[in-house]
Amino acid sequence: MNQFTSVHDAGNINALVEKALMYKANPLKDKTLGAGKRIGLLFLNPSLRTRLSTQVAAGNLGMDAIVFNVDKEGWALEFEEGAIMSGSTVEHIKDAAPVLGNYFDILCIRTFPSLKNRDDDYSELYITQFIKYCGVPVISLESATLHPLQSLTDVITIKEVISRQPPAIRRPKIVLTWAPHVKPLPQCVANSFAQWINAWGEADFVITHPQDYELKEAFTKGATITHNQDEALKDADFVYVKNWSTYNDYGKIYENDPEWMLTEDKLKLTNNAKVMHCLPVRRNVELSDEVLDSANSIVTQQAANRVWAAQAVISEILKSNK
Amino acid sequence: MNQFTSVHDAGNINALVEKALMYKANPLKDKTLGAGKRIGLLFLNPSLRTRLSTQVAAGNLGMDAIVFNVDKEGWALEFEEGAIMSGSTVEHIKDAAPVLGNYFDILCIRTFPSLKNRDDDYSELYITQFIKYCGVPVISLESATLHPLQSLTDVITIKEVISRQPPAIRRPKIVLTWAPHVKPLPQCVANSFAQWINAWGEADFVITHPQDYELKEAFTKGATITHNQDEALKDADFVYVKNWSTYNDYGKIYENDPEWMLTEDKLKLTNNAKVMHCLPVRRNVELSDEVLDSANSIVTQQAANRVWAAQAVISEILKSNK
Amino acid sequence: MNQFTSVHDAGNINALVEKALMYKANPLKDKTLGAGKRIGLLFLNPSLRTRLSTQVAAGNLGMDAIVFNVDKEGWALEFEEGAIMSGSTVEHIKDAAPVLGNYFDILCIRTFPSLKNRDDDYSELYITQFIKYCGVPVISLESATLHPLQSLTDVITIKEVISRQPPAIRRPKIVLTWAPHVKPLPQCVANSFAQWINAWGEADFVITHPQDYELKEAFTKGATITHNQDEALKDADFVYVKNWSTYNDYGKIYENDPEWMLTEDKLKLTNNAKVMHCLPVRRNVELSDEVLDSANSIVTQQAANRVWAAQAVISEILKSNK
Repeated sequence: MNQFTSVHDAGNINALVEKALMYKANPLKDKTLGAGKRIGLLFLNPSLRTRLSTQVAAGNLGMDAIVFNVDKEGWALEFEEGAIMSGSTVEHIKDAAPVLGNYFDILCIRTFPSLKNRDDDYSELYITQFIKYCGVPVISLESATLHPLQSLTDVITIKEVISRQPPAIRRPKIVLTWAPHVKPLPQCVANSFAQWINAWGEADFVITHPQDYELKEAFTKGATITHNQDEALKDADFVYVKNWSTYNDYGKIYENDPEWMLTEDKLKLTNNAKVMHCLPVRRNVELSDEVLDSANSIVTQQAANRVWAAQAVISEILKSNK
Repeated sequence: MNQFTSVHDAGNINALVEKALMYKANPLKDKTLGAGKRIGLLFLNPSLRTRLSTQVAAGNLGMDAIVFNVDKEGWALEFEEGAIMSGSTVEHIKDAAPVLGNYFDILCIRTFPSLKNRDDDYSELYITQFIKYCGVPVISLESATLHPLQSLTDVITIKEVISRQPPAIRRPKIVLTWAPHVKPLPQCVANSFAQWINAWGEADFVITHPQDYELKEAFTKGATITHNQDEALKDADFVYVKNWSTYNDYGKIYENDPEWMLTEDKLKLTNNAKVMHCLPVRRNVELSDEVLDSANSIVTQQAANRVWAAQAVISEILKSNK
Repeated sequence: MNQFTSVHDAGNINALVEKALMYKANPLKDKTLGAGKRIGLLFLNPSLRTRLSTQVAAGNLGMDAIVFNVDKEGWALEFEEGAIMSGSTVEHIKDAAPVLGNYFDILCIRTFPSLKNRDDDYSELYITQFIKYCGVPVISLESATLHPLQSLTDVITIKEVISRQPPAIRRPKIVLTWAPHVKPLPQCVANSFAQWINAWGEADFVITHPQDYELKEAFTKGATITHNQDEALKDADFVYVKNWSTYNDYGKIYENDPEWMLTEDKLKLTNNAKVMHCLPVRRNVELSDEVLDSANSIVTQQAANRVWAAQAVISEILKSNK
């Protein structure tokens, strides 16, 4: 593995999941693999779980991890080729990236979409330019359209749960449901989850959302899509709750009906489903307290698994670049 | 020791002080005690000494310390049970704390009071919720009403000074005096100092402040309280200078008479007292240059001792949680 | 070496460059030299290369590096002696510095000029006060008037390039040229480069800038100074491009003629010169894309060398303070 920006970099998903679960069982198994190596964690946007879990994972592999909040500790970067930099951007990615590539063995970067121009965001200009110019392996800590470490974590968590259940239900029904929110959010987590569950292929996969919230087909193809949340939830084994803004008329909030919030009543439609969310979650807006505080919620388990997903990915990259 | 949020968690104060002084004499004595363990330092408010001294202390014990400025690198947390999170808070402590508890072996948190609602602040909602939900040992880096690592440092420093003096004055007179300031400050340091000196019990303890600045009796009980600063200072061996805002009519500045600033003239009333302050100090507002720059000031020694206080506490928690 | 704030602290420049190049060939040669030692990196202003390269360098020597963004994680510091601190500054350097000196074995500090009052800036009040009060060796990460780690890097890079060329041109012609910019910048990099190239003495050194941009003579003395950029560039082996604001009528932008931007056409006047810049660079304002993207540009090599410059300096200080 030489980069990790989408499911296409993951190779065999089940093998990567197994590797992550091996690290969960034995966190310090490869504690010298990264000795003398440095990983840089660059944030153009805020982060809690992603930052901390990746730092922990790198430490478990013996690497030095250095966090750099580009937006707060540094300055605004320019990504447009040929820009005349007489405005507010202070440094071009063409100059910053190769320098960073000299300081680090692996670079990780988080960069959110603008939600203003869909073509720009979906071109993944930022992370693409970064990879092009830095010269070392790059791990996405969430980009304009995808969040692959989150999705790997999600598959790990799903596999962990079903491995403890009777074989009869080991082809789970997984539902990704849109939820209300107070502001327009990226499509990253939803795109990425759809991409990974489709690529994994070991589930019946349903996506449900109000009309106008269709995701990009390249990610959802293979899933059943419906505007009827109740129907979608029926007999679900896993319900993944997530808000996203519109993709077609880009970055907007259309309908924001509170009825789409997942409640205990709705959960009764499911097969006692486990409830997932990438966090942070707006309680009593996206998900009710009663659901989040119930035994059905596996959001903490899911977030804790972020460490093992990151550790598996960093380990693969270290091994490929020895 | 399984948490450290007030003097009630300290056990035998003198034993803890001895432990800190042992680390001062030999910082790396237990340099492998925390090997493979991680400590998270979470700041909801800024910090200089507390952050750096705790990082240094953890490093001396072989731990990995990770700092996270929640307010700047993350987002606003919600602490109210049952909140409908449609406002500015992005994540509930009920969701964030258990995740952090999965990433770290010990968690430290700094969270200031609002100074708006006394009942809320004095309920210590933030740190209490954090402890309730994170599932690992918690160390207060200053909470809404107390600052126990500071107070432990203060007792360490006082004991260090008197151990070098003739036995005759080894029951010192300690005076906590209010000082002017330019804005309303928490009562934490004063509350906590009073709580610790009273619990320690090996001093004559006097608190002096203008009227209207009474502290909560639960902390001050056992001390002599007077509005006459000159009388309080008479024959003092230690003068602890600190501003705080009002407790009764909560969070206000009433009288702010510059005459309450500690000067060299006032120091003449004392028994050549050592002068203490937790820092940061507003020079020539709380304390005059002449006092801070004199041999009477032990504020640097006091701040340097923060390392050994933190190291003793972390060490105790590591030993209790092996 | 007990501090590093200008060329006057460097001792033998060629020996220091050799040391840096030795570390470049073998980064972990002295990997236990700093074991058990701590270096504090204090930033009153933002930084990318300086911060990261110094962290990397310290790590290569086995030191623990702790970054503290004073401006963002802490509070405003006061530097004036005798200040009555009733304004916006929260802590005096006289109180903060000795505490930091207790926590760290070496302290590094970045502090920019105000560009408002020349006497204040050129008195180097901030770093001077810091050195006076902290009690441990101090490394400048750029001060009000100088940037010595950058200049050491520049000499390292120049020597690296010429060591690969025929002896006939080993006394290079080096040109420092002013470039346009969008806002008033400090004179630090230009002052410091001039100071080091003059002190090094193994080059023909020319400085060119529009009228009114004269630098302080104490730094430039020994260089040929001209307002004719074309003439200056003739037969140059190295062109160092940098904007600075006026020194005489302090901190202003007078002429800002885009013709001063270094382009490929202008480069034709040179002896196929290598082009240098300390970064960050405003593309197509200071330097054209065509130059920065050509084989003549050595800005990445230069920035990468920051690590070895910092490592040589820290190493010297560690050895002097064993």
